[in-house]
Amino acid sequence: MPLLPPQITKVIEEFSKLPGIGPKSAERLTFHLLRSSKASPESLGKALADLKVELKYCKTCQMVTLQDECSICSDTSRDRSMILVVENPLEVIAFEKTPYRGLYHVLHGVLSPIDGMGPEQLKMKELIDRCKTGSIAELIVATNPDIEGEATANYIRQKLSDTVKTITRIAHGLPMGADIEFADRVTLKESLAGRRSL
Amino acid sequence: MPLLPPQITKVIEEFSKLPGIGPKSAERLTFHLLRSSKASPESLGKALADLKVELKYCKTCQMVTLQDECSICSDTSRDRSMILVVENPLEVIAFEKTPYRGLYHVLHGVLSPIDGMGPEQLKMKELIDRCKTGSIAELIVATNPDIEGEATANYIRQKLSDTVKTITRIAHGLPMGADIEFADRVTLKESLAGRRSL
Repeated sequence: MPLLPPQITKVIEEFSKLPGIGPKSAERLTFHLLRSSKASPESLGKALADLKVELKYCKTCQMVTLQDECSICSDTSRDRSMILVVENPLEVIAFEKTPYRGLYHVLHGVLSPIDGMGPEQLKMKELIDRCKTGSIAELIVATNPDIEGEATANYIRQKLSDTVKTITRIAHGLPMGADIEFADRVTLKESLAGRRSL
Repeated sequence: MPLLPPQITKVIEEFSKLPGIGPKSAERLTFHLLRSSKASPESLGKALADLKVELKYCKTCQMVTLQDECSICSDTSRDRSMILVVENPLEVIAFEKTPYRGLYHVLHGVLSPIDGMGPEQLKMKELIDRCKTGSIAELIVATNPDIEGEATANYIRQKLSDTVKTITRIAHGLPMGADIEFADRVTLKESLAGRRSL
């Protein structure tokens, strides 16, 4: 008979599926939840159960939102001729801390054949359709400066160079291999200012 | 209006309450769950909701179990004259990988006044009651070799030195400040062999 009851093993197993959480960390988190007064399995469980309820993706930029259109896309004061293309919603939050006031497009991933991520798995068709309206003067590609991010940037350039006049890439002020969402706002601001033609 | 929908913020907040998970890691875990094919918020949420359902603590040793008595306490082949006192259930699992075949007692914590943990918050009364039956020849105190663990060991010695003939402490083969649950089985075996009178 296993020493740990199955419901404990199950939580450890589910935690272990998360990035950066190994079996030992998963055990610690599980037992922490069993005896902590601050965190509880019920409240985390409830929050997770509700996570996808009523969650929508903006019909324009694909940002997570509660409405059909997110607060950035529906803000008429923003520069609607620029689109900043990012990998995920957290990067929108990061760029919102810079002076950038154009629009965004969230790809929800990057091209990565090894992980089964092709253009169909990304919000690439939606980006191409947006650019075809002809109102976009500049597309800034802000995927991460790593292999997949560069490949995705090249794919976007190939697909849209005939459609959008100016396609730029954020400056490589960010060291290769780093993560945009962990960069400070000054580095992000510099990376926008130093963008170059793709 | 906040950029992230409240159900996302809520999950990030709940994850942040866990030890070793800061706000940035919490964000990554949350968005990983939203797009991962392997892990899902529903299955982790369900596992967490079920965590405490039907979970019991062994009436004898306080180990987590599904029955009134755990599989170790109900195993008649074990040496019932020895009790190994540990801080939490994971340490029972760790010691079960050594040749030790006596019984256990899980305190579910250590004395730590700064965290509001006094003897009443631990399974200390249950330990004292077990020892009072007179059938215990040796009590091995295997709390972690840190300040709280040493304080708890001293408290146990004070409370039970008149009741139990031999009270021992696992050998300090473990470096001070280390965690028992991360130690390898050889180190744990050595720490049992080198135990000294408390």
